[in-house]
Amino acid sequence: MFRKLRSLDEAKRILKQNFTPKPVGVEQVPLSLAHNRVLAENVVAPIDVPPFNRSTMDGYAVKAADTFGAEEDRPIALKLCGSVRVGETPKVTVEKGTTVEIVTGAPLPKGADAVVMLEYVVQKNNTIFTHRSVSKGENMMKAGSDIHKDEVILKKSQTLSSREIGVLAALGFAQVNVYKRPRVAVVSTGAEIVEPGKPLSPGKIYDINAHTISAAVTECGGEPISLEIVPDETNQLKATLRKALDSADILMTSGGVSVGPTDIIPKVLNTLGKPGVIVSGIAVKPGKPATIAIVDGKPVFSLPGHPTSSLLIFHILARSVILGMAGRREETPVTVKAVASAKMFPARGRRTFVMVSLTGDKSGGLVASPVALGLSGAITTLAKADGFVEIMERQQFINAGDVVTVHLFKPLRDVS
Amino acid sequence: MFRKLRSLDEAKRILKQNFTPKPVGVEQVPLSLAHNRVLAENVVAPIDVPPFNRSTMDGYAVKAADTFGAEEDRPIALKLCGSVRVGETPKVTVEKGTTVEIVTGAPLPKGADAVVMLEYVVQKNNTIFTHRSVSKGENMMKAGSDIHKDEVILKKSQTLSSREIGVLAALGFAQVNVYKRPRVAVVSTGAEIVEPGKPLSPGKIYDINAHTISAAVTECGGEPISLEIVPDETNQLKATLRKALDSADILMTSGGVSVGPTDIIPKVLNTLGKPGVIVSGIAVKPGKPATIAIVDGKPVFSLPGHPTSSLLIFHILARSVILGMAGRREETPVTVKAVASAKMFPARGRRTFVMVSLTGDKSGGLVASPVALGLSGAITTLAKADGFVEIMERQQFINAGDVVTVHLFKPLRDVS
Repeated sequence: MFRKLRSLDEAKRILKQNFTPKPVGVEQVPLSLAHNRVLAENVVAPIDVPPFNRSTMDGYAVKAADTFGAEEDRPIALKLCGSVRVGETPKVTVEKGTTVEIVTGAPLPKGADAVVMLEYVVQKNNTIFTHRSVSKGENMMKAGSDIHKDEVILKKSQTLSSREIGVLAALGFAQVNVYKRPRVAVVSTGAEIVEPGKPLSPGKIYDINAHTISAAVTECGGEPISLEIVPDETNQLKATLRKALDSADILMTSGGVSVGPTDIIPKVLNTLGKPGVIVSGIAVKPGKPATIAIVDGKPVFSLPGHPTSSLLIFHILARSVILGMAGRREETPVTVKAVASAKMFPARGRRTFVMVSLTGDKSGGLVASPVALGLSGAITTLAKADGFVEIMERQQFINAGDVVTVHLFKPLRDVS
Repeated sequence: MFRKLRSLDEAKRILKQNFTPKPVGVEQVPLSLAHNRVLAENVVAPIDVPPFNRSTMDGYAVKAADTFGAEEDRPIALKLCGSVRVGETPKVTVEKGTTVEIVTGAPLPKGADAVVMLEYVVQKNNTIFTHRSVSKGENMMKAGSDIHKDEVILKKSQTLSSREIGVLAALGFAQVNVYKRPRVAVVSTGAEIVEPGKPLSPGKIYDINAHTISAAVTECGGEPISLEIVPDETNQLKATLRKALDSADILMTSGGVSVGPTDIIPKVLNTLGKPGVIVSGIAVKPGKPATIAIVDGKPVFSLPGHPTSSLLIFHILARSVILGMAGRREETPVTVKAVASAKMFPARGRRTFVMVSLTGDKSGGLVASPVALGLSGAITTLAKADGFVEIMERQQFINAGDVVTVHLFKPLRDVS
C-alpha cells in the first residue's frame, strides 16, 4: 500500500481540514451526577439569592436611623414588637421606634433595614436598649445581593466542580443540561492478543492497549466502549469496525498499522466509507505507523501496537478531538521546566518525543531523566514516565544540563 | 453550652489525638472500573513481559554470529527453513547457517538470537542474502525484559491512571484490589432549607451545602450519601444522625452550629456516642462555628451554614481525613505564587482565609485579587474564587504588591 509519511504539523492540518470536533449532544443529569461534567448552556438565575433580605446575625431588626447616637454608656430604647424565626414570613412590621427579635438566616420584617447584634442589647420587659448604632444594611444580606435574578451566572462550557454545583443548588436547579460524553469504541487487533484474565498460551501476549486507551478516553471526558479483540483477518475486522462505527462517535484501533504482511486496517477502513484514510504514517518517534481516517463523518485513529507509542499518539492527536466532542475547552497542556539529566537525541527528520521521569534537585528544581529511551514496546517505560520532552524536526539534540519543557501526563502536585 | 474556641493548630492536634484515618476496606474491581482508584496491595508480576523472546521487526530470525561480516556489497547466504507468525509457537529451530522468516510480534524460534530487517535481505528460492550484520539481541525483546516475573511492579497506595492500568493488563490481571471509598453521609439542617427542584415558599432558601459538600467528597475519593434535610428539632435530628452514623464511615452536617437558640447539633452529637464533641468552635475566619466530634470511632464534622465557610472548613480539616480513609496519600496542597492586588486584613487573633481570584499579569506572573472579602454567605464568592490566601494569627496584614502563596481549589493549567 502506498504510504506517504506526513510531518506532525501536516497530519494535524489534514485532520483539521477533514474533521471539526463538535459536541455530540446534550443530556440532563441530576446535580448528584453533575460533578466534572460540562455545562451545555448559559445558566440564567431564575430567582434572587438570597430570595429575601436575610439576617446574618442573631439580634434585633431595626430601622438603622433609630439607633444613631447609641453608645456604650448611652443606650437607645426601642419597643419590642415580636420575633421572626428562620423559614417563616414575618407577620410584623418594624415601625419608627420599634424592633423585632431575629435569628441568623431569618427574613427581615418590612420596615427594617439593619440588625443590631444580640451582644450589644439589654432587654427589659418589652423594651430593648441598644448600646451600639448600626448603619443601613449592617448584619444583613439584601435580596439578590449574592445573585441577581436574570443574571447569567454560569457560562456554557464551564466544567462543574463542587463550587459551580453550589451555585446551581442555590438557584434551585435539581437537574442541569450537560454535554453528552462522546462514545469511543476501542478495538485491539492481532492474532497474538489475549484478553487479561484468560489463560496465556505460548506465543500470545495480553491486550494492553484496549485498557490504556479506554482509561485515557475516560481521563479526557469520553465514554469508552470496549469491543472484542479481532485477529488481522479482513472479513472479521470489517464486521467489527462496521459495528464499532455504528455504535460510537469515534473509533480507536491499535495494532495492525505497521508495514508487515498482515496490516490490513487501512485497507479495510477505505472500504467502510468516505474519504477513508487521510493520514497514513507520521514522521514522529515513536508512533510512525499512526493512521488517521474519516469514515462518513466519524474520526478513526489507528494507533500503533506498541503501548507507549499508542498512548503518545493518543495524547498528541486524539485527545484534543475527544475534548472537542465532549464540549470541553481545549486545555493548555500542563508543562513544567526541568533540567535534562542526560543527552537526548532526535530521530533524523522526525518529531521526537522522549519519555522522562521527574525528580527534585537539591535547590528545589526538577530534573528530567529519559526513561528507557528507544524501547517503545516497553509498557514499563510508560508507567515510569511522568511526561515527555518534545524535540523538533530541525533540532540537533538536547544536552545534559539544558533546561527542557516537560509535558506532563497528569498535573504534578506542588509545582510552584 | 460552654464553648472554648481552639486555634486551628490545636483543633488539628485534638482531631489527630482522637482519630487516626485508616483505609475503610478493600474491594475487587474490574480493570474497566479501576481508573483513579487506589491500589490496596503491591502488585507482583505473575509472568514475564513479554512472555517470550519477541521480534520487534518484520524480517528473518538468525544466529547473530552467522551474519558477522555481511556488508552492502558482500552479502552472506543463509538457508531459509520456515516461517513464524504472530500468536504461534515456532515449530522450527534456527541452526547454524539457517534462518526463519518472522514478523513483528512473533516469538523467536529456538536457536535464534537476533532479527535481520526485511529491508536488508534479498531472497532467492530457499536462500536469503543478508547485506547487514546484526548483533545479539538486535530487533527483538527478550522474555522478561519489560517486566520480570516476581518483580514488584506497582506499589500499594498508587493511584491508577491509564498507565498503571496498562501494566496490570500486560500482566493478565482482569481484576484489581483497590481501597473502598469511604462512605460520607451529608446532612443539611435548618427550618429554612428546601431541596433544589422543589417550590420555594417565602422565608426559605435552597440547600447549597449538601450539594457542594457531596461534590467535594467525590473530589477527594469518598462516596457521598445524601440524606434528607432536617429542621433543627432535637428528636428528628437525633434519629437522622443516628441513621447516618449507622450507614456511613464519616458524617458531615452543615448549619445549626452557630450560637443561636436553635443550635442543637453539638448537644445531640454528645448523646449519640463517646467521646462526642472534641472541638467546639475554631479561631478561624471564616468558619468559626465549625465543630468536630468523634462518635463511637466515627468522625463527625459539623460545618457552618454559610457555603463559603463550610467548603473552606471542609478543605482545611475534613479533606485530609477522607483522603486517609480512602487510602490516598496526603497530597501536598497545590499552591502558586501571586502578587496581591489589594491589602488583605486578618481578623484579630484568628487564622484568616481570604478567597482570591487569579489573573495573569503582563510579564506572565499571576495576580491574586480578593473576592468579595467578608461576605462568607455569598455562594458567588466561592464560584469566583480560584483559591485562598492564608494569613497567620500573628500576621499584621498583606500589602498590595506583596507576593502571596495561593492554595488552589483545583490545579491550574499551565502553571510553569
